[in-house]
Amino acid sequence: MGQFSPNKSRIGHVMSNLESMGLTQALVCDPMSIWYLTGYYNQPLERFFALHLSADGKGGATSTLFCNKLFPDATGAANAIVTFDDTENPIPLIAAVTKSDKPLGVDRKLVAHWLLPMMDAQIASDFRLASNAVDDARAIKDDAEKDLMREASRINDEAMSWLAAQVHEGVTERKIASGLLAEYRRLGAGDHSFSPIVSFGANAADPHHEPDGTTLGKGDMVLFDVGCKRQGYCSDMTRTFFTAEPTDRQLEVYNTVRRANEAAEAIIKPGVTFAEIDLTARHVIEDAGFGPYFTHRLGHQIGLEDHEPGDVSCTHDEPVKAGMIFSIEPGIYLPGEIGVRIEDLVIVTEDGCEVLNHYSHEPQVLKA
Amino acid sequence: MGQFSPNKSRIGHVMSNLESMGLTQALVCDPMSIWYLTGYYNQPLERFFALHLSADGKGGATSTLFCNKLFPDATGAANAIVTFDDTENPIPLIAAVTKSDKPLGVDRKLVAHWLLPMMDAQIASDFRLASNAVDDARAIKDDAEKDLMREASRINDEAMSWLAAQVHEGVTERKIASGLLAEYRRLGAGDHSFSPIVSFGANAADPHHEPDGTTLGKGDMVLFDVGCKRQGYCSDMTRTFFTAEPTDRQLEVYNTVRRANEAAEAIIKPGVTFAEIDLTARHVIEDAGFGPYFTHRLGHQIGLEDHEPGDVSCTHDEPVKAGMIFSIEPGIYLPGEIGVRIEDLVIVTEDGCEVLNHYSHEPQVLKA
Repeated sequence: MGQFSPNKSRIGHVMSNLESMGLTQALVCDPMSIWYLTGYYNQPLERFFALHLSADGKGGATSTLFCNKLFPDATGAANAIVTFDDTENPIPLIAAVTKSDKPLGVDRKLVAHWLLPMMDAQIASDFRLASNAVDDARAIKDDAEKDLMREASRINDEAMSWLAAQVHEGVTERKIASGLLAEYRRLGAGDHSFSPIVSFGANAADPHHEPDGTTLGKGDMVLFDVGCKRQGYCSDMTRTFFTAEPTDRQLEVYNTVRRANEAAEAIIKPGVTFAEIDLTARHVIEDAGFGPYFTHRLGHQIGLEDHEPGDVSCTHDEPVKAGMIFSIEPGIYLPGEIGVRIEDLVIVTEDGCEVLNHYSHEPQVLKA
Repeated sequence: MGQFSPNKSRIGHVMSNLESMGLTQALVCDPMSIWYLTGYYNQPLERFFALHLSADGKGGATSTLFCNKLFPDATGAANAIVTFDDTENPIPLIAAVTKSDKPLGVDRKLVAHWLLPMMDAQIASDFRLASNAVDDARAIKDDAEKDLMREASRINDEAMSWLAAQVHEGVTERKIASGLLAEYRRLGAGDHSFSPIVSFGANAADPHHEPDGTTLGKGDMVLFDVGCKRQGYCSDMTRTFFTAEPTDRQLEVYNTVRRANEAAEAIIKPGVTFAEIDLTARHVIEDAGFGPYFTHRLGHQIGLEDHEPGDVSCTHDEPVKAGMIFSIEPGIYLPGEIGVRIEDLVIVTEDGCEVLNHYSHEPQVLKA
């Protein structure tokens, strides 16, 4: 994932965000945020891994990376690298770097296993959630990031055609799901961005159904919610297909979800709030009488991670900004009956949005 | 993963552990621990999911499960199920259940995103790490759990034979790694227990190397560190192979690691400490002059998760107990040169241990 060196521009953005929160130091724990700020990636599991940033008084920061000796060499990733092994308690090492008389911004992902002992050791005067300082920087994608997001979604469009071609009598959800990774690799992607969802018939009424041994039933609808990574950047798309001429009921549900998706995408531009976008889709579904069956937020931001902070939900009153990328994924889930979801990714542009997924929204009957 | 109902015996064990820590209530967040206590599993990602346990004065507990409405129905999993959707803040709902005048035990995995607001809302008089109350119960496997662990390791032994057969000129690490899941499924396993490690030559000197496009070089050693799940229970084994007659140096490193592994396994029985087991292996490696190149703890406990709390490390002074299951995985990593690790899982028995992996430790030269 590139050379290791503190990214001055991104760190400057974070320090400016911290300053506006009244903070001069923070401990970043999210491995993806550390990669974003340093070029160094590591998946620490239960071991301690964090980047401490401390304002240098010149708009930048002094950075210190805390790394277990078991992790790959991080030389260059920060101004100082503090290493320790599995037999050492990292808390005193952190205490030696933090300013104990100042509040410390901490990552939302910092676990109690480390946070409570840091509090006991009084390594700072106060502990405040400060993930937003990094998340807000990560939310605005630069041109290189946008290109990778476009590529990841282009591959996902192609993978959707492959998925649609796998649907035939007797096939199981698991069989299709387990073949997808090889197809992604063939198309130039690195990995799944999340565990793929393949749902037949009533299984799709559980939005997070995991692929199992269910075989395709006669006339079952089929839902695919899948994504891949392209150089670390994630795609995420859902389409729902018919395998027989749709009933009036199926078509009504499908077209309602489609209209909700397209109505939301039509209003996106800088200044419109996340809540307005969510409610635009939600009202379409409510007006059709399916309100109680749209059980989740409309979408989520995405980039280096499939789910990034900043919901597209009816309680998120902030305006969207150019460069943000998020999903638009309305759904209707009728328990024991059917589930339909149609999901695209969009980039907010200066005066609207660019939809990254080009796979059609038209109702499609697969030859199963 | 079975029927949903509070497991009285397991919850009783946890409440007794909490009592000895001076606690009468706790918030369990680890999804696997919630499954262990209720039979209900859910992977909540960034959404709130927790089981509150409050002493009922009769050695048991009143249980309350906090679930997002998006999660599958949890009916029966606890005495009360509190649900909320993505637009609701769960903190007031939790505050309504916790006793604000009593300390609250919290899970080591509880993230700052929820913990700091709980502190702000003063939902308890104090917050204390209490994962051990659950982890200590989970660490002692019952007979049904031991049988599943044996099955998972039996499958892993068979998978190792398959892996060894895939090594040939021109193959890449990634090619072998990406075929393993299908083999596990064929052998009756559910999924990887962790992302498989396939390392050729000097790549093995990074203990956490990820499989990439590296092709097998002439005479490269090959390291496989892999595991699968059997009904939720994990296996984990490492073997290192030769692909040409070993050099004296390669054989010296290999045999040192092998002796370290076998010396450690030979002393395991109830009452011996984790530290003694680690140091037994470590001294073998140090005496051979490779001490600085054994850069990690000897092992980790394992069960529903690949890594469970309670290291096999030289600073963990507690005695092992019958029913515990952990890995014994000494390694020597010579940067830029070679890496060797030999790992088995063991169950502590009444008077020794049972090694779950039966794939030979003998040096083996593969026909590549």
